[in-house]
Amino acid sequence: MTMRAVERGSRIHPCRFSAWGLLSLLAAADAVAAPLRSGEDDVRAWRVAHDARLLADYRAFLAIPNVAADRDGLARTAQAIVDRMEGLGLAPRLLPGTSPESVPAVFGEWKVPGASRTLVFYAHYDGQPVGNRALWTRTEPFVPRLLAGDEDLAAGAPVPDDARIYARSASDDKLGVFAFLAAVEALRATGAAPSVNAKFFFEGEEEAGSPHLPEILSAHRELLASDGWVIVDGPSHPTGPPQVVFGVRGDSNVALTLYGPLRPLHSGHYGNWVPNPGMDLARLLSSMKDGAGRVIVEGWYDDVAPLGDVERRAIAAAPSADAALAKELAITPEGGGKPLLELLLEPSLNVNGMKSGDVGEQARNVIPTEASAVLDLRLVKGNDAKRQFAKLVRHVERQGFAVIDHPASAEERRAHPRLVAMTQSPGSYNASRTAMDLPLSRAVVAAVGSVAPPVELPALGGSLPLVHFNDILGAPTITVSFANHDNNQHAENENLRVGHWRRGIEIAAALLRLPAPR
Amino acid sequence: MTMRAVERGSRIHPCRFSAWGLLSLLAAADAVAAPLRSGEDDVRAWRVAHDARLLADYRAFLAIPNVAADRDGLARTAQAIVDRMEGLGLAPRLLPGTSPESVPAVFGEWKVPGASRTLVFYAHYDGQPVGNRALWTRTEPFVPRLLAGDEDLAAGAPVPDDARIYARSASDDKLGVFAFLAAVEALRATGAAPSVNAKFFFEGEEEAGSPHLPEILSAHRELLASDGWVIVDGPSHPTGPPQVVFGVRGDSNVALTLYGPLRPLHSGHYGNWVPNPGMDLARLLSSMKDGAGRVIVEGWYDDVAPLGDVERRAIAAAPSADAALAKELAITPEGGGKPLLELLLEPSLNVNGMKSGDVGEQARNVIPTEASAVLDLRLVKGNDAKRQFAKLVRHVERQGFAVIDHPASAEERRAHPRLVAMTQSPGSYNASRTAMDLPLSRAVVAAVGSVAPPVELPALGGSLPLVHFNDILGAPTITVSFANHDNNQHAENENLRVGHWRRGIEIAAALLRLPAPR
Repeated sequence: MTMRAVERGSRIHPCRFSAWGLLSLLAAADAVAAPLRSGEDDVRAWRVAHDARLLADYRAFLAIPNVAADRDGLARTAQAIVDRMEGLGLAPRLLPGTSPESVPAVFGEWKVPGASRTLVFYAHYDGQPVGNRALWTRTEPFVPRLLAGDEDLAAGAPVPDDARIYARSASDDKLGVFAFLAAVEALRATGAAPSVNAKFFFEGEEEAGSPHLPEILSAHRELLASDGWVIVDGPSHPTGPPQVVFGVRGDSNVALTLYGPLRPLHSGHYGNWVPNPGMDLARLLSSMKDGAGRVIVEGWYDDVAPLGDVERRAIAAAPSADAALAKELAITPEGGGKPLLELLLEPSLNVNGMKSGDVGEQARNVIPTEASAVLDLRLVKGNDAKRQFAKLVRHVERQGFAVIDHPASAEERRAHPRLVAMTQSPGSYNASRTAMDLPLSRAVVAAVGSVAPPVELPALGGSLPLVHFNDILGAPTITVSFANHDNNQHAENENLRVGHWRRGIEIAAALLRLPAPR
Repeated sequence: MTMRAVERGSRIHPCRFSAWGLLSLLAAADAVAAPLRSGEDDVRAWRVAHDARLLADYRAFLAIPNVAADRDGLARTAQAIVDRMEGLGLAPRLLPGTSPESVPAVFGEWKVPGASRTLVFYAHYDGQPVGNRALWTRTEPFVPRLLAGDEDLAAGAPVPDDARIYARSASDDKLGVFAFLAAVEALRATGAAPSVNAKFFFEGEEEAGSPHLPEILSAHRELLASDGWVIVDGPSHPTGPPQVVFGVRGDSNVALTLYGPLRPLHSGHYGNWVPNPGMDLARLLSSMKDGAGRVIVEGWYDDVAPLGDVERRAIAAAPSADAALAKELAITPEGGGKPLLELLLEPSLNVNGMKSGDVGEQARNVIPTEASAVLDLRLVKGNDAKRQFAKLVRHVERQGFAVIDHPASAEERRAHPRLVAMTQSPGSYNASRTAMDLPLSRAVVAAVGSVAPPVELPALGGSLPLVHFNDILGAPTITVSFANHDNNQHAENENLRVGHWRRGIEIAAALLRLPAPR
């Protein structure tokens, strides 16, 4: 653990901005030169005037590696945020969990005397693993590259809204961190102030399943007290507008390993007689869903909480991009003809990955000893992660397998020739949903709508551990999504459309100046 | 291509042995010191007396890389054989094919005036790809290591028959190459001579599917004229005895790629609506075999030539190791209760490898863009490789997929959302079978039996491109298998039991002195 807790006073230095990597001097000079103005409409003008410098700052921020396997990179990412917050007078500190291996969250606060509400603004500063580097054809994951179409932009050339920044976490989710800090800078520079007591909580383990989030929240319960959390993560609606989403699916990963012969065997000398674990895995996986994409594990949908009228109306009102999206992706949707938005409110079962033996040049004529898969289970209101896993275990047992929770020994393999090791990720968590008609819910929609009218949805298809905020802090959560929908998050060539980045900063500023309850 | 054809005279230097790597001087000194003796029984005594030096020679030979991806290593392997043959007076030469990328075979000959028969002795000097280096727990693939159980042997200590040499190709198939050259050395040293005109043909592309073997055979038809080929490859019977096998299965690899969305997608935001190519592959593979391991592709078994009475009797007479083997391997056999030997005379379908997305630490919550598998089809007498592939293509089409023979373009993926790219390996070949009651067949059994009574089988489960010898040269082939059955050929930790290595050299000498037809 190379990080240390940072505790500082809340002195405010409105005109001093510390480093995002190499561009610190440029940023500081630019910020000092910016005229201070007041009034709500000036924020956008300030954003436009400082576009090039902000974009350079963002690229410097994206250049810092932020994947779970690189603890030093994560620590440097957190420190860069701390430095920036300090320059903005946000009294930053690191919030570690109680476990020594926990990655701390970064906390900051802008106290507003007389504000009637306190909100916490959340984003996460860690990113997904980079995946297959050979498929990062646009750039290296941590060498941010700005492209207009397939072309690099000349230095100083105007950057069109359609240009994209390619880098890991460009959309998911350094965007959220950066947008709030840029919005704070804009407010400071224009002499504006938030309408709420604003707290910032930037998590460092979201892509790892937030294993220590509950202990971080529990350990800092008073510091994090609020009237609600605004979460920035996820994609805009495929038709363009930002999204305001009142819930998320829960998430759980399940790792499965099936066993073949104790040693790899020549497929000629044993093929037809020794069962192939890859074929067994294929049979097991295909037993879990029918041809229409419906999960046929017994009881899979039994405990789903039905949608209410408000939620059904919101789904019906949301624009549908299904037909265009299917064409764009070259797919024929599964789900028996139901719209995407409705299917995202059902629990899912996805094969994240599967492997047995080798393919391509490394393929050999062999009966492998093992076959593995990782499943992603999305959970909706009513589901429980442990219960959903138990249904899956029972299903595997019904296919004739013994199920264990650890890698099998030779003795176990001899005792149970049909054997599966199944484990559930420790960071699994349940779904969360906030009522769409709370005063806070309407105020967030109004704030976003002052920049661009959003699509409102009862729940996002993706997941965030929002249930911990509900359970531990008793606070409602509302999620606002800034990034373009086709951002390749969780995959190679992750990117962010510049127009969405610009809009994100403006929405963040509007959220800081949330309108009063009606 | 770093190899050059070597053409030399057939001068014989019975007491000069050239290098196998570092041990050349030791080998030469040892060989010069060996007393020359004559008479048949002396061969075994010579083999025992020179055991340590031969074992050191073999380890030096195994240290030369011999995989298809390393053309320089293959060339050095061939050159080591040429050097050794030259020392043995076998007039070595390289036999290239007509294609510039072909890997040449190594040819040599011991002409015996007055011999009534000419035999060609075959082995292959190339090895399987090394696979996952992390699983080579005993040693690196080309750092041969001699272990008695888990223990290294002290220098100069007696080497028990149960000790094993670990290295790629220790069993498959440098053993065959080395055994014949050691047997020639033994005959030369003891003043004995073969009973047949002996030709040696050591192939360099067998593990790549022998893509240029037909052109090599065609280009050197007269040089390779014979009364039959004796092939040394494959494992002994699991109960211990060597095997004499009168046929082999044919072999064909099929690569399949299924397509998902054009770009990788977040499994939360799209899961339930965008089909997963890994799940589609699982469903497709599981449609090919039933739960008992029977291939359910239509017509799969239709053209299988039935076994004759001689063949059925041979199968019935062969010892069965099925129960012990199933326990050793920790498997429950498939095949509906039929014995292994019978199932190896049926066509098979094995999943060599399959992959979609990632598993383990690299797994991500993603719907991947592709899923791939490599299948291994074994063919028996009556099957045709192209016909068998066509049956599989029709099966895939019947599952609702369009089938193409090349990687799909975005346009093709849009036009056919259910699309499979399927290709058959160019080196695919059919099965071969020689009558078990030919005079040559009986003579080979008698020669092997003079060392250890063999198990006789109509056909091996594994494959060799023997059909080319039948079709191009009109010669029958008989296969003799030396290696221990549990040698991990085609996998990590390939090994050879020292007792099987010793027996192999003695059998090779007996084959060179094949008894006259009765």
